[in-house]
Amino acid sequence: MLTQPFPLLPEPYSLHLPNLEQDGFSKNPFFHGIIAEVPEQHRTKEGHRKVGYTLYFYSYSSFVGRAIYMEDLYVMPEFRGKGVGKALMSKVAQLALAAGCHQLNFTILDWNKPSMDFYLGQGCFDATATIGYHCMRCEGEALKQLAQL
Amino acid sequence: MLTQPFPLLPEPYSLHLPNLEQDGFSKNPFFHGIIAEVPEQHRTKEGHRKVGYTLYFYSYSSFVGRAIYMEDLYVMPEFRGKGVGKALMSKVAQLALAAGCHQLNFTILDWNKPSMDFYLGQGCFDATATIGYHCMRCEGEALKQLAQL
Repeated sequence: MLTQPFPLLPEPYSLHLPNLEQDGFSKNPFFHGIIAEVPEQHRTKEGHRKVGYTLYFYSYSSFVGRAIYMEDLYVMPEFRGKGVGKALMSKVAQLALAAGCHQLNFTILDWNKPSMDFYLGQGCFDATATIGYHCMRCEGEALKQLAQL
Repeated sequence: MLTQPFPLLPEPYSLHLPNLEQDGFSKNPFFHGIIAEVPEQHRTKEGHRKVGYTLYFYSYSSFVGRAIYMEDLYVMPEFRGKGVGKALMSKVAQLALAAGCHQLNFTILDWNKPSMDFYLGQGCFDATATIGYHCMRCEGEALKQLAQL
C-alpha cells in the first residue's frame, strides 16, 4: 500500500493532504458538500453515477453580514454543458438564502476563461476586476512566524 | 431613536445591516472576534480602552484542507504603528495553527497601499498578483435568480 504523499503536490502541500472525512463529517465540520448524481442509465462507462460536487461553508462580511463561500465546484468533463454545474450552484444559492446569507463568494484563477464565462453567465461579477479586491494569504513558515509574537 | 438604515450604504446593503450580536454570539456563530484593549493609562481621550479588533472564521481549501479567514482587522488611527494590528493578527495565526489550519486568508482592496505594505511585512503574499486568484461574487437579485432553478 502506498503511503507516500501525492507526488505532484509541491511543498508544503505534500505534508498535509486534506482529510476530507475528518474535516467535513465531524461534529463541527469545516465544510459542507453537495454531490450531483445522474440516473442509472446515464452512468459513466466506468459505472460512476456521482459526476460532480460542490464544497461550501458559511462565512461572514462585516459589511453585509452572513455569506456563503463556494470552495469548489466540479463536474466531470463528459458531463459539462448539461446544467449540472448550474444545478449545484443553484442549490448553494438556495441554502445561502435559507440561512439568511446576502452574498455567495468564491475565487477563480484568471486564466480559467471557460469558468469565468460560466460564472458571469450566472449573474456573478468579478470583484477583483470591478472593485479591486485582492486575495491575500499567509501559510507555511510565514504563518508559524506570525504566530510567534 | 434613529431606526433608518445607515445613510451612506448603497442598495442593497442598506436593506440588511449585519446583526453582529445575533450572527456572532449565537450557538452556531458565523464568525469569531478578538478585541484589543489597552491599559487604563493609555485609554483614548473619549475614555475608550477597546482600540482594535479582528473578525475571523474557519474556512476550507480542497487543496490544503483547514484554513482560517480573517474578515476584518481594524485599529483606531491614533493607535496604529504600535504593534496592535500585528498582535491581533498573530493571535489569529495562533488560533489557526491550534485548529490545524494551514492557511490564513483574507482580502484587501488594491488601492489600500498602507495595508498591503503592512501585510507583506508580516510574511503574507498577494495571491491575486502572484497566482491570479480573482474574487467572484453573486448577490442581490442575481443570487435570488440563481436560486430559482
